[in-house]
Amino acid sequence: MGKPRVLIIGCGFGGLEAARALRDAPVEVTLVDRTNHHLFQPLLYQVATAGLSAPAIAAPVRHLFRKQANVTTLLGEAATIDAQARQVLLNDGAALPYDHLIVATGSTHSYFGHDEWAPFAPGLKTLDDAFEIRRRILLAFEAAEKEADPQARAGWLTFVVIGGGPTGVEMAGTLTEIAHDTLAGEFRRIDPSSAHIVLLEGGPRVLQAMPESLSERAAQQLKKLGVQVRTGARVTHIDGSHVEVKAADGTENYRIESRCVIWAAGVAASPLGAQLAQAAGTQTDRGGRVAVLPDLSLPGHPEISVLGDLAAAKSYLQGHAARDVPGVSPAAKQMGRTAAANILRRLAGQATLPFRYRDWGNLATIGRNAAVVDLATSLGHFRFSGYFAWLFWLFAHIYFLIGFRNRIVVLVDWAGAYWSRQRYARVLADID
Amino acid sequence: MGKPRVLIIGCGFGGLEAARALRDAPVEVTLVDRTNHHLFQPLLYQVATAGLSAPAIAAPVRHLFRKQANVTTLLGEAATIDAQARQVLLNDGAALPYDHLIVATGSTHSYFGHDEWAPFAPGLKTLDDAFEIRRRILLAFEAAEKEADPQARAGWLTFVVIGGGPTGVEMAGTLTEIAHDTLAGEFRRIDPSSAHIVLLEGGPRVLQAMPESLSERAAQQLKKLGVQVRTGARVTHIDGSHVEVKAADGTENYRIESRCVIWAAGVAASPLGAQLAQAAGTQTDRGGRVAVLPDLSLPGHPEISVLGDLAAAKSYLQGHAARDVPGVSPAAKQMGRTAAANILRRLAGQATLPFRYRDWGNLATIGRNAAVVDLATSLGHFRFSGYFAWLFWLFAHIYFLIGFRNRIVVLVDWAGAYWSRQRYARVLADID
Repeated sequence: MGKPRVLIIGCGFGGLEAARALRDAPVEVTLVDRTNHHLFQPLLYQVATAGLSAPAIAAPVRHLFRKQANVTTLLGEAATIDAQARQVLLNDGAALPYDHLIVATGSTHSYFGHDEWAPFAPGLKTLDDAFEIRRRILLAFEAAEKEADPQARAGWLTFVVIGGGPTGVEMAGTLTEIAHDTLAGEFRRIDPSSAHIVLLEGGPRVLQAMPESLSERAAQQLKKLGVQVRTGARVTHIDGSHVEVKAADGTENYRIESRCVIWAAGVAASPLGAQLAQAAGTQTDRGGRVAVLPDLSLPGHPEISVLGDLAAAKSYLQGHAARDVPGVSPAAKQMGRTAAANILRRLAGQATLPFRYRDWGNLATIGRNAAVVDLATSLGHFRFSGYFAWLFWLFAHIYFLIGFRNRIVVLVDWAGAYWSRQRYARVLADID
Repeated sequence: MGKPRVLIIGCGFGGLEAARALRDAPVEVTLVDRTNHHLFQPLLYQVATAGLSAPAIAAPVRHLFRKQANVTTLLGEAATIDAQARQVLLNDGAALPYDHLIVATGSTHSYFGHDEWAPFAPGLKTLDDAFEIRRRILLAFEAAEKEADPQARAGWLTFVVIGGGPTGVEMAGTLTEIAHDTLAGEFRRIDPSSAHIVLLEGGPRVLQAMPESLSERAAQQLKKLGVQVRTGARVTHIDGSHVEVKAADGTENYRIESRCVIWAAGVAASPLGAQLAQAAGTQTDRGGRVAVLPDLSLPGHPEISVLGDLAAAKSYLQGHAARDVPGVSPAAKQMGRTAAANILRRLAGQATLPFRYRDWGNLATIGRNAAVVDLATSLGHFRFSGYFAWLFWLFAHIYFLIGFRNRIVVLVDWAGAYWSRQRYARVLADID
């Protein structure tokens, strides 16, 4: 009899960490992803805003595991999970049998039932998304330079970011850098710094995962950079020329003429969630996530673990009430380690352990020299913002970047960008 | 009356150099290109083989000219040259009037009347081309890893490069590096170093622009790297599964099973060439190029200059017979300077000067530590090959890279690649 086969679908933070945690285990790991790289998603907005090239934040999966002999990497997209037959079917028809399955396919953006908005307001989850947003931002300035009609030109120079979470805040802040610094002096007919950057948030404040005081600081820093922040702003319509907004407080509705809209509002779990829920005899939650047992396994299927953004997981800390695990990368990594450890415990005939989320706090960057940090330590929370928070954010992200070479490249790129105020990845491929 | 309007179409080596040469001239320059960047084409094969990211060899045109106030940059594609009305119409309908026109739109690849081969054998002229070739190379190894049938697997692991000019030689040599070094140890079912790299050349030797002794050296170095070099090999058929070849010496024809074919064989001048020839009352040559007068102007249209790969130009050195100017970047740059100088002479009421090509020789890289150099100096030709030639090639290319930052990035990338034998830009976007 061969070694137990562990199949991992998805090579984000959760899947990668699970495969690594099985390094010395007597199992055969197969890692399937529909791209060939692990993407460092926290810096994806930098690719979308031309600050980094794609290879700086994307590490080839097979290269990461070249020395881990028990891992086989396959490029492919999982189409069907057959929990009865214990196999996964790929899009290309290949069947991958497993003894243990880890599903970590993450989430994609969601338009809350308004998929017709997708062509006008791309979201940011993959490298392709980032290239598309980069293209739209750069082309908007190019189109403005060619546009004779002042009203149409104003539409090209108005950028609307929808969603005041970390991605929306980063995008809006960085857009002000592009308009004020990067493109300064490069146009002859328009003034790029006259661009309007509008951040729309449906809730009462930006960065709702943060303490209220830091949300307030973030909003102040955004305004200082030149972002118009509108909270309580529910989007009711998007097309190629404008966005319509309903004010949550009942004051008048308004429209914003804009030809470049970026969607950073909603996420939905990967479509595999529905299949898993069906196998468990349950239903996904509103965000498409699957409820899992305390040990991260699927109810009724101890051989299937669900991780990261795909899992509606709870954390069980001794002496505390169970707590929802947020959809952030440290949580996904920790779940990857727990899932791997529980596979080994099952193989050894031991009882599995419940997942315990170690919350290190939360941090978000806003733009040049601006960030907010909420650090959770055993001594309590430390909250700070501004330049020091920005430095902290910078080094934390570089530290966690996969692959030593990437860290150096990103550091060099950023040092160059900081001093020159330039963004070097301003590449559009051919128009047609 | 306003300043004379100089319109430059194309921002390759010729157009860029012409615009720069008009730096202090009392003219208004408009620079139109269908991309937003100047591409350092000699290193494009590095992007296609995942050694460099696109931004490392692409500099935003407007950024290059931000401090040259007499240049306006426009993103657009020239559709029609109306030499009578002295205006150029863009694809988007905009009309750009000019007093002086410089056309420098270069060349694209040509399939010698076999456009049906295009989907199976992409050429390498733009960043999009490079991404497509990178994608095919990386996917071929991925497909081989998944393929159970040994014959089909061999097809995935056979790479055919058609054309033994500098691009073909670079691509074939670099493919051996990918197979032997970059991917070593990353696959579990295939051995990447078992890949076959075949270089097909229709003529009797590779690098025909070089002296025969260096062609011979190049072929030796290619063979040493593991490339199968076949000269006198005329391609008669390409599809998704194989290439058919007719031997020029009448020996038997053969076919090569290959799923990844790269076209580096023929170029044809940009389609604007035909319009220019018509305006001059002539016809283009077999390569689609336009014959120009000694001062690079279009016959009958002294206000139009044609440069670079689009021009069938001759060089007039005193005391020598007129000589055909080769389609290389130093020639395009020199033509750009001559065209700009002649515009200024015409404005000053002076006679224009004939173009004189200063030939610095020729160099080509083959792969790791392998290159050939034919250096033309006033003391005669210096010919050398191997490691020293490779170092010479490396520093020459880095020296001529546009933009100081790019030079450092490329140097760092290459130093890293050289020591680690890795290629860091191995990024595939999503499969679908």
